[in-house]
Amino acid sequence: MIVVMKTDATMAEISNVIKSLESMGLKPHPTRGADRTIVGVVDAKRRSDLTHLGSAPGVEQVIPIAKAYKLVSREFHPDNTVIKVNGVDVGGAAFVVMAGPCAVEGQEQVISAAHAVKKSGARILRGGAFKPRTSPYSFQGLGEEGLRILLAAKKETGLPIVTEVISPQLVPLVSEYDDILQVGARNMQNFALLEAVGSVRKPVLLKRGMMSTVEELLMSAEYILSNGNQQVILCERGIRTFEKATRNTLDISAVPVIKRNSHLPIIVDPSHAAGHTEFVPSMALAAVAAGADGIIVEVHPSPETAWCDGVQSLSFDIFNQMMDGVRRVADAVGRPMAEN
Amino acid sequence: MIVVMKTDATMAEISNVIKSLESMGLKPHPTRGADRTIVGVVDAKRRSDLTHLGSAPGVEQVIPIAKAYKLVSREFHPDNTVIKVNGVDVGGAAFVVMAGPCAVEGQEQVISAAHAVKKSGARILRGGAFKPRTSPYSFQGLGEEGLRILLAAKKETGLPIVTEVISPQLVPLVSEYDDILQVGARNMQNFALLEAVGSVRKPVLLKRGMMSTVEELLMSAEYILSNGNQQVILCERGIRTFEKATRNTLDISAVPVIKRNSHLPIIVDPSHAAGHTEFVPSMALAAVAAGADGIIVEVHPSPETAWCDGVQSLSFDIFNQMMDGVRRVADAVGRPMAEN
Amino acid sequence: MIVVMKTDATMAEISNVIKSLESMGLKPHPTRGADRTIVGVVDAKRRSDLTHLGSAPGVEQVIPIAKAYKLVSREFHPDNTVIKVNGVDVGGAAFVVMAGPCAVEGQEQVISAAHAVKKSGARILRGGAFKPRTSPYSFQGLGEEGLRILLAAKKETGLPIVTEVISPQLVPLVSEYDDILQVGARNMQNFALLEAVGSVRKPVLLKRGMMSTVEELLMSAEYILSNGNQQVILCERGIRTFEKATRNTLDISAVPVIKRNSHLPIIVDPSHAAGHTEFVPSMALAAVAAGADGIIVEVHPSPETAWCDGVQSLSFDIFNQMMDGVRRVADAVGRPMAEN
Amino acid sequence: MIVVMKTDATMAEISNVIKSLESMGLKPHPTRGADRTIVGVVDAKRRSDLTHLGSAPGVEQVIPIAKAYKLVSREFHPDNTVIKVNGVDVGGAAFVVMAGPCAVEGQEQVISAAHAVKKSGARILRGGAFKPRTSPYSFQGLGEEGLRILLAAKKETGLPIVTEVISPQLVPLVSEYDDILQVGARNMQNFALLEAVGSVRKPVLLKRGMMSTVEELLMSAEYILSNGNQQVILCERGIRTFEKATRNTLDISAVPVIKRNSHLPIIVDPSHAAGHTEFVPSMALAAVAAGADGIIVEVHPSPETAWCDGVQSLSFDIFNQMMDGVRRVADAVGRPMAEN
Repeated sequence: MIVVMKTDATMAEISNVIKSLESMGLKPHPTRGADRTIVGVVDAKRRSDLTHLGSAPGVEQVIPIAKAYKLVSREFHPDNTVIKVNGVDVGGAAFVVMAGPCAVEGQEQVISAAHAVKKSGARILRGGAFKPRTSPYSFQGLGEEGLRILLAAKKETGLPIVTEVISPQLVPLVSEYDDILQVGARNMQNFALLEAVGSVRKPVLLKRGMMSTVEELLMSAEYILSNGNQQVILCERGIRTFEKATRNTLDISAVPVIKRNSHLPIIVDPSHAAGHTEFVPSMALAAVAAGADGIIVEVHPSPETAWCDGVQSLSFDIFNQMMDGVRRVADAVGRPMAEN
Repeated sequence: MIVVMKTDATMAEISNVIKSLESMGLKPHPTRGADRTIVGVVDAKRRSDLTHLGSAPGVEQVIPIAKAYKLVSREFHPDNTVIKVNGVDVGGAAFVVMAGPCAVEGQEQVISAAHAVKKSGARILRGGAFKPRTSPYSFQGLGEEGLRILLAAKKETGLPIVTEVISPQLVPLVSEYDDILQVGARNMQNFALLEAVGSVRKPVLLKRGMMSTVEELLMSAEYILSNGNQQVILCERGIRTFEKATRNTLDISAVPVIKRNSHLPIIVDPSHAAGHTEFVPSMALAAVAAGADGIIVEVHPSPETAWCDGVQSLSFDIFNQMMDGVRRVADAVGRPMAEN
Repeated sequence: MIVVMKTDATMAEISNVIKSLESMGLKPHPTRGADRTIVGVVDAKRRSDLTHLGSAPGVEQVIPIAKAYKLVSREFHPDNTVIKVNGVDVGGAAFVVMAGPCAVEGQEQVISAAHAVKKSGARILRGGAFKPRTSPYSFQGLGEEGLRILLAAKKETGLPIVTEVISPQLVPLVSEYDDILQVGARNMQNFALLEAVGSVRKPVLLKRGMMSTVEELLMSAEYILSNGNQQVILCERGIRTFEKATRNTLDISAVPVIKRNSHLPIIVDPSHAAGHTEFVPSMALAAVAAGADGIIVEVHPSPETAWCDGVQSLSFDIFNQMMDGVRRVADAVGRPMAEN
Repeated sequence: MIVVMKTDATMAEISNVIKSLESMGLKPHPTRGADRTIVGVVDAKRRSDLTHLGSAPGVEQVIPIAKAYKLVSREFHPDNTVIKVNGVDVGGAAFVVMAGPCAVEGQEQVISAAHAVKKSGARILRGGAFKPRTSPYSFQGLGEEGLRILLAAKKETGLPIVTEVISPQLVPLVSEYDDILQVGARNMQNFALLEAVGSVRKPVLLKRGMMSTVEELLMSAEYILSNGNQQVILCERGIRTFEKATRNTLDISAVPVIKRNSHLPIIVDPSHAAGHTEFVPSMALAAVAAGADGIIVEVHPSPETAWCDGVQSLSFDIFNQMMDGVRRVADAVGRPMAEN
C-alpha cells in the first residue's frame, strides 16, 4: 500500500500518517522528494481496510498494491487446480463442454437434450431448476421436480449435472442432486450464499457478475475457499457495457487475466454473453482460442418454444455443427477434447 | 410488443408468427409495408416471456412496448406513495434526511452520531450491523449486538432506524429492531431476499444495484409489492461506469425518470456515489434540487478512524454545514424540511 | 510515479529499473520491504511517457501519481479563472445561462428564440451552424449562412453567441462571427482542432466527450492552454453508460471534481445529458445546486418541428418556467443570476 | 419506424401524429389495441430525423426499425467486399496480419521491425508518423520524416504500409506515401476527416471509437462510402468499460455482429485492447477463431525502450511465437494465412 501525500502536506500531517501506520503494527517507508512525500507499506501482511487513511489530513490518495485475495491467487498456489467432477476433469489437459437447456421444462425435454449434447461431445449437462428472474411474473423454475428430472437424465446418460442454487437454504437440497453447484451472475456478491456453498464439499461454478471486475470475481471465490471449499470453477459470461448489439459484452480478455492471477479453472458462457443464437458459435470458438478451460452452452430441442432464453439457445443441429469447430480449435491450441 | 420481421421474411414465416401469437391467446395486428412486415400486440395483457419469438425464422427482433412492471408504475397508481416511518413521512411534502455511520462500531459512536445528526436536522438514523463486504477478511459487522446498539440510540433520540438485512433468514431478527429494512445494492436482485422482505409489514429501503438499470430497480420493487408489501422507498446510490474519479457515478437523472414512471418515493445516497467526503455535499444538494424525496448520508464522529467507508463519511461539523445548504435548496424547490 | 516490482523480482531486475530511471535524469527512491520492492520517483518533473517501464522484466505495474496536466490545474493557478464574454462573466459571482436552438434553421427561428431566452434570463445565445451528425444523411447545418443569422440575432438582442466549430480550417471563419468557439463532445480529442482553437484569442467552450474521463477533459483543455489560449470553459454534457432511460448519464459529480482540480469554469448541458424534454429542468436545477458556473440549454420555438434534437428542446414556456427554479436555487447556493 | 402512443393518448393526438407523417410523404399504419395505439411506418424510405416526433403530445416513444446505414449494409451488398492492397487481399480467403511499431522512431527501428514481422508471416507493415496523444507533452510523431522511413521499409521488404492520418489537411500528404489510410479511434466521429478520406481512392482502415457502438462505427463507414470511397476496412480495438484489468475491453462479439450486418472486412487490434504484452497473443487467437479477417499488432525491436505503447508491444520473439498459434487457429477455422 502506498499513501500519496498532497504536494502541500505539512510535516505534521506526514508524521501523523506514519504514526497511524505504526500503531497498526505496520512498517511505513517514507520517501521525500522535491515534489511530495509518499509513504510505502511493502510488508507481506494483507490489510484490506486501510483506505480510511484517505480521509486523513494531507493525504491525496491511498493506492493498494498487494492483491486483496490470497487463497485463489497464483502466487499462493502456482499450479493449475483441476476440479474432478465424476470422472470429468475441469481445468485439466482437455477442453470441457457443458451444455443443456436454460430451464428444466420437463423430462422429455431434458433427456432428449442430454442425449443430443452427449452425442456431440459435451461432458456435463446443464439445466436450471431454480431460476432467478428479473420479473416476478416470469417462470421461476420447476424447483425440486426439476432436480429429479436432471438426476434422471444423469442416470440415463452418465453426464454429471450442474444446476443453479439461488439461496443459502437451498444448498443442502440442491447438493443432494447435482454434481456442480452453480452460483449465478446476480448472486456473485450474495455473501451468505457464497458462505453456504463454501461449507459443502462439492464443486462450485461461480459466474462473474455482469458488472463485476475480475478482481471482485476472485474476491468472491476467496469467500468460498476461505470457508473451506477449494473446488471453484470460474465463469466469464459477459459484462454490461454501453453496447447493446449483444445481450452482454463477452470480456474475452478475462480468460488470460484470470489465468495469470489465479490457479482456478475458467470457463466461458457464450450463450448469455451473445444473447442471440447466431453469435454463439463464434464466441465459443473465441473462448477456446483464448485459453479457456471449457464452455457452458444453452441447447434446447426447440428454441422457438423454450420457456426462457430461447433466443440464445442452440438447436441440436447447430450445436453439433459448432462442436466440430470447437474440436478443431481445441486441437489447434493444444487442448484436445476428451471423448465421452 | 412488436415483432419486426426481416425484410426478406416469407409469407409462411409471417403466418407462423401470427399463429404462434394467436395460440398464446393474443391478438396480433400485422402491418405490411413496402419494406417489411411488423406484427403488433397492443392488448393490455402483460407477458414478459415472448422474447423467444426472436428465434423464430424470419424474425429480426422483438420489441417490448409495455412496461414489465405494474404495481410500482404510476399508470397503475397515479398518486405519490407516502411511507410512514414512526411519525416521519418519506415521499410526503417535506424533504427527509437519514444519516449515521456506515457500520455500528460501538454504543458511544452510534449514540453520539445519533445526537449529532438529529441536532443538524436528520429525521432517521442509519447504521450497519450486518455488512456485506467484497473481501471475506473485512469487518463484517457486529450482528445482533449492533442491532441492540441502534435500538438504544433510537430510545435515546427518538430517531427511527434503518439498517441493512443481507439474507432471508435474518429478516425476522432485523425486523424486531429496525423501522426500515434496507436491501443493499449488491442484493438488489437477490430474489429470495426480495420475497422475504415482501412478506413483512415494514418499510423497505431498496438500493439500486451499481449494475442495474432503473427498469430493473423497478422490477425488483415489483417483487416486493407483489409479495404484499407496498411500502418501498427506492434509493439511487451511483452506478458503475468507466469514470473512476468518484467511487461510482451518481445517476442524478434517475430521480426524475423514477418520478415519471413510479409512485414510490426515491431518495439519494450521495456518500456511496461520491466515495470521497469532499464531493458529498454538492451531490446532496444536487439530489434535493433534482426532486428527490430525501437523502441518506454517512456521518461518523471520527472519519479517520472509521472501520469502514471513512473516506466518504462526513464529520459532524461538515454534515451540519451541509445541512444548511440542504435546507436552503429544499426551500428553493418547495420541499422544506420538517423540524424534529 | 511509482514502479511496483513483482514479489519475485530479482535484484538484477530492480537494479535495471533504477538505472533506467537514472539514465532519464530522474532520481529513483527504492523501498525494499518483506513482500516486495517499490521504486518511487517523487520529483516535480512531469514525464508522461514512463509507462513503457511496465514491460521491463520484474515490473508488475507503473503507477503515475502526479497529474499529467499542469496549466489547467488548481495547484498551478489557485484562483478561479473568470472568462469575460462581451460583458458576461463566466466563472464569476453570478450563475450564467446560455440557451437557444440546437441548429440554426432560419432567421425568424433564431431571432424569436434569442428574444425569448433573453427575456427569461439567459445571457448568451447558442445555435449550431455547422452540425456534426452521426449520419451522413442528416441535416449538417446552414454553414456560414447560419453564422450570419446568429450575428443578426446578436445585433438585435445584444446577446453574445456561442457556436460550434468542427474542423481546424473553419476556425478563422467561425471566429469572425461568434463570441465563444464551441468544441463538441465528439471532437474533444481532435487534437488538430484543439491546437487551432488554442491559437486564437477567443473563449472556447470545450465539451466533455461522452467517452472521456474528467482527467482526459482536463488534458484536452491543457492542449488549448499550452497553445496560448487561457480562456477555456469546460462543459459536462453526460457520459455514455449502460443506462438507456436517458440519452446519456449526466455525471453531476464531475462538477465538484473539476472545481477541486482545476481553476477553469465548468458548466452543464442538461439537454444532451437528459435527451428528453421532461427531464431537462430537474437536471438543470441539479447543476446549479452542485456548484456549476452555468448551464447551456436547447430551446426552440416549436420543438415538435425542430430539425434536430427536438425531443430534448424546451419550448419558450417550459424554459421560462424552468428559469424561475434556476433563479431560486442559484440564490439558495449563493450564486444569484445577473440580470440582463 | 414505429410511433408508440401513450396509453392515455387522445384520438386528436393520434390523428395529429398520422397527419405529421403524411405531411412528410410517409404512409403511416395505425394499429389500435385495447391497451394503446401504435403507428408503423414500414416503407423502404430511410429517414433518420423523425425522432423529433418523440416530443409530440401523446407520444411515448419513437422506435427506429430500419438501419440508419445503407451502403455498408449486407442487405444492400450481400457479398463480402475484398480490399486489394498492393497484392494483399483483406477480407478474402486468407487471414491477414498487419504488424509493426506503434510509432516510427527511426529508420533502423522500422526496417528491422519490417523484416522481422515479414519473416513471421505479416503481410502489411504498420507504424505511426502522426500520433494523436492525450497529452500535449507526449511525443507527437516524426511527421513527414516518419512517412519517408515507412516508405523506405516498404521498398526494402515489399510490405505495403498502413499509417494514421489525423486531420483532413494531412490526407493528401499521407496518401502520397501509404497504402492504407488509418483513421484512429479518437477520430471515428471526426466527420471532416471521414469526408476527406472518403474523397481519395485508397483503402481506409477505420478504427472503432472506444465508446462507440457497432452501429455508430458502421455509420462512420457510411460517411466514407457515401463520399465515394468503397474501400473501408473496419477495426475492433477494444471499448471502454468499467473493467480496468486490461487497457480496454476487446468486444470480440463485434466480429460476428459486423459480419452479419455489413459486407466490409473487419480486423481486430489485440494490442490496444489488451494493453499489456502478455494478454495480446490470446486476444489475437480469439480474433482468428471469432471470424475476423485479420489482426493489427504492435511489434517493436525493444519494447522496454519504445517511445509509446511499449507495455503492449510484442518483441520479435513473442510475435513469432504468437504467429505459430495464429497460423494453426486460422487453419482450424478454414482461413489459412497466405505466405509472403
